[in-house]
Amino acid sequence: MKIQRDMGKAAALRSVRDVARWDAETDVVVVGLGAAGCCAAIEASEAGLDVLALERMSGAGGTSALSTGQLYIGGGTPIQKACGFEDSPEEMFKYLMASCGPGEDEAKIRMYCDHSVAHYHWLVEHGVPFKESYYGDGSYTPTDDCLSFSGSEQSYPYRDIAKPAPRGHTVQQDGIEAGAQLMRSLDAAVRRTATRIQEDSLVQTLVRDDDGHIIGCVVRCDGAEQLVRARRGVVLCAGGFINNRAMVDQFAPALWRCRYRAASDGDDGRGIRMGMGAGGAVKRMDVGCIVLPYTVPKILMNGIMVDRRGMRFINEDLYQTTVGEAALLHQDGHVYLICDNACFARPFAPAEVAAVEDTVADLEKALSMPDGVLQQTVAVYNANAARGEDPIFHKGAAYLQPLTNPPYAAIDYRVENSLYTVFTMGGLHTLPTAQVISPDGEVIPGLYAAGRTTSGLAAQGYSSGLSLADATFFGRMAGRHTAGRSVPPE
Amino acid sequence: MKIQRDMGKAAALRSVRDVARWDAETDVVVVGLGAAGCCAAIEASEAGLDVLALERMSGAGGTSALSTGQLYIGGGTPIQKACGFEDSPEEMFKYLMASCGPGEDEAKIRMYCDHSVAHYHWLVEHGVPFKESYYGDGSYTPTDDCLSFSGSEQSYPYRDIAKPAPRGHTVQQDGIEAGAQLMRSLDAAVRRTATRIQEDSLVQTLVRDDDGHIIGCVVRCDGAEQLVRARRGVVLCAGGFINNRAMVDQFAPALWRCRYRAASDGDDGRGIRMGMGAGGAVKRMDVGCIVLPYTVPKILMNGIMVDRRGMRFINEDLYQTTVGEAALLHQDGHVYLICDNACFARPFAPAEVAAVEDTVADLEKALSMPDGVLQQTVAVYNANAARGEDPIFHKGAAYLQPLTNPPYAAIDYRVENSLYTVFTMGGLHTLPTAQVISPDGEVIPGLYAAGRTTSGLAAQGYSSGLSLADATFFGRMAGRHTAGRSVPPE
Repeated sequence: MKIQRDMGKAAALRSVRDVARWDAETDVVVVGLGAAGCCAAIEASEAGLDVLALERMSGAGGTSALSTGQLYIGGGTPIQKACGFEDSPEEMFKYLMASCGPGEDEAKIRMYCDHSVAHYHWLVEHGVPFKESYYGDGSYTPTDDCLSFSGSEQSYPYRDIAKPAPRGHTVQQDGIEAGAQLMRSLDAAVRRTATRIQEDSLVQTLVRDDDGHIIGCVVRCDGAEQLVRARRGVVLCAGGFINNRAMVDQFAPALWRCRYRAASDGDDGRGIRMGMGAGGAVKRMDVGCIVLPYTVPKILMNGIMVDRRGMRFINEDLYQTTVGEAALLHQDGHVYLICDNACFARPFAPAEVAAVEDTVADLEKALSMPDGVLQQTVAVYNANAARGEDPIFHKGAAYLQPLTNPPYAAIDYRVENSLYTVFTMGGLHTLPTAQVISPDGEVIPGLYAAGRTTSGLAAQGYSSGLSLADATFFGRMAGRHTAGRSVPPE
Repeated sequence: MKIQRDMGKAAALRSVRDVARWDAETDVVVVGLGAAGCCAAIEASEAGLDVLALERMSGAGGTSALSTGQLYIGGGTPIQKACGFEDSPEEMFKYLMASCGPGEDEAKIRMYCDHSVAHYHWLVEHGVPFKESYYGDGSYTPTDDCLSFSGSEQSYPYRDIAKPAPRGHTVQQDGIEAGAQLMRSLDAAVRRTATRIQEDSLVQTLVRDDDGHIIGCVVRCDGAEQLVRARRGVVLCAGGFINNRAMVDQFAPALWRCRYRAASDGDDGRGIRMGMGAGGAVKRMDVGCIVLPYTVPKILMNGIMVDRRGMRFINEDLYQTTVGEAALLHQDGHVYLICDNACFARPFAPAEVAAVEDTVADLEKALSMPDGVLQQTVAVYNANAARGEDPIFHKGAAYLQPLTNPPYAAIDYRVENSLYTVFTMGGLHTLPTAQVISPDGEVIPGLYAAGRTTSGLAAQGYSSGLSLADATFFGRMAGRHTAGRSVPPE
């Protein structure tokens, strides 16, 4: 695959007055063939519209193809039922409302929860394979299994707010290839429609008429410029902005400290900038999904996460994204996981051991922590854990084992030294119809967006699978709306 | 004063094609006569331009008039020198770069530090009175004194990064009237120029030509619409957005929890929305100045700030904005100040006492904290404080007294129960010339902004006086740039 690189102008729109002639016409232009774009193209095309999908790379996939292929779906899917888990749209709604705030998008969450089971069926009907099996916890299933707890559903305080159910549905395919399998399936589904796919084509900017309607776009392909008219709308599905340093500095500077950007080269914010140039508002541009990957193998969760002073700051059984947010944003990215010999294991994701000592006192010293703090933290934790309790942070009983078996180790989860994973969650402000709105809340006629080009279901409190969930679902809604079909589906 | 209320459309620009005739013409339109707008008008007018200043209220002032009238100025001002404090642009720069990040605007900080002393002289020359006296600490001087430490200069870690100097310069006027005095002075200075002032005039939106230049604005005055042409530019100095619930939800939802919005009715984000409609980018829209006002009287800083569990989380001698940020954003707005009878005093700002007990154990119980945590926190703090040390959080020695005199009190600084003060710090993305730039980083011809309509000197880590400092300074730069004068001044 070759990428059309262009970090330049995207927000400077072309006026229709400067369009001498159109090189091509279509009903709908879809910009970017990741998960969102494929679903938009499928829906619009199945509704009978002529769709032109423009992809800057030499094939579909985008960042979705690099993901772990997990979608957050619930409310009582066939797989949840087959695996013996009860769920309902209401419990799912309560969990997402509690975990995704403040500033959560209630309208999107409501619509998605109510239509999540139907969305599952739509994906299956379009060839996305899911195995009827339960894996366990986490965002990554090394097997071809499907269902897992991919958020903080079982942890305090959420376990008391909503009945926990696993909602991470991983596409069937061994290990890390599940994202690629998702995209192979969706790409094939697009190709079964009449959608015209044009690859190696970078959308440079949008074309606006005198009334502020978006009526087309400027495309660069084979070194030449094409002007494409879109009679029904342009759908921006061009990814996030984590690979654009200037934008990260401008909106979410702390995120740049994370060493691993879960992104493809195309996540340079072009889609967002085009939308802004068209008068689109942005929303929650400060928010990132920040993964601190310390929970595989699971026995590491028997350890305790401490700040630079040796104090705990969170229940360690919260999902790794919530812990990642707290570690990076509240603790300045300076934290350690303290283990004893009984719970120590090599973390699955690269991380170094900062120190190993025979006593907690020596470990404290080796980490340059103030005298006595870590010792006190461990003593209090152990006394409570021996009773199966964590009255301070409420870690689940399954992970409460006193740390009493020397030697003691500190795994180095300082942001500079380990592999925090990040991508951006902020983007264009859209309605649940995927229509982009202006700072005044007005719809921008002809402009749609979905996926990480938008602010979606989750702001803070990311659960794995939410990004692919809203990319696929609201991508579909964009496609439906361009065709005048009901949103949500009836 | 009456306000022109209009929460409606601002981003929907008027095209020059829809302008049948101009009702008025001028070189420069200044939108809003707070501190930024007055300074913009003065500079442009003194440079010989025709200036029309439009104010939606019945007089100048804006939120600046409601402020404590303190400006962050340093680098060696005559008052710093007279009061025996050494300072330099370099030390000021080091402090601001360390405290205002991540994502601080180095170019603005550099320019402001290098020209801060000259800016002081400019203010004095334009009639702003400062008394040659030192008050002490804080953002509020109840006397007519001038100089005070208004940030975290003396606190860990900043005291080790830059040589501390007081830089808060409060305008001479007793007590809370200093902001009003600043605005009386600047308003008088504007009126000494040829600036035409038109009050009770709400700028509804901007007028754009076919090339994207901002060439005027639409004004509502006495129920009628006026079209004003601006030959050299429009300067948006229309305040922040803390009084616009939808915008706060969209960009900075946690801020809405603060009970006191330091704002005038006009802080409804119109200026920012107009700028966005003109193609302007925004920056750091998530950031607020969050004041937790627990430091007056100063003896309260001998107490310790604890989270809902009874654990300390910060050095209590940091400036109240930094503590406010940590309390609201990292501790979910659930904190208490623990005092003994020796350091207890009624806080100057309204706050309730959550509990008073004869022992720390009983206090812990009364606050529903987990058993033993607060007791341990106090015991450790006391043992260290007895030696004049705080090895855990590094609070300054001046505030370290063991808490050993019963009864013990917890002052309730939960965000719902006390008076957190807030205003927004995010806004349009501007160059140090005050030119608004697009998401691509391109200058938007004819469009300027200053004050809280922009993202200014401070992102996180607000020190009091920075907002009036950048409002006045970059307001001036806007006025100078419209007139083709050097920026910064030579």
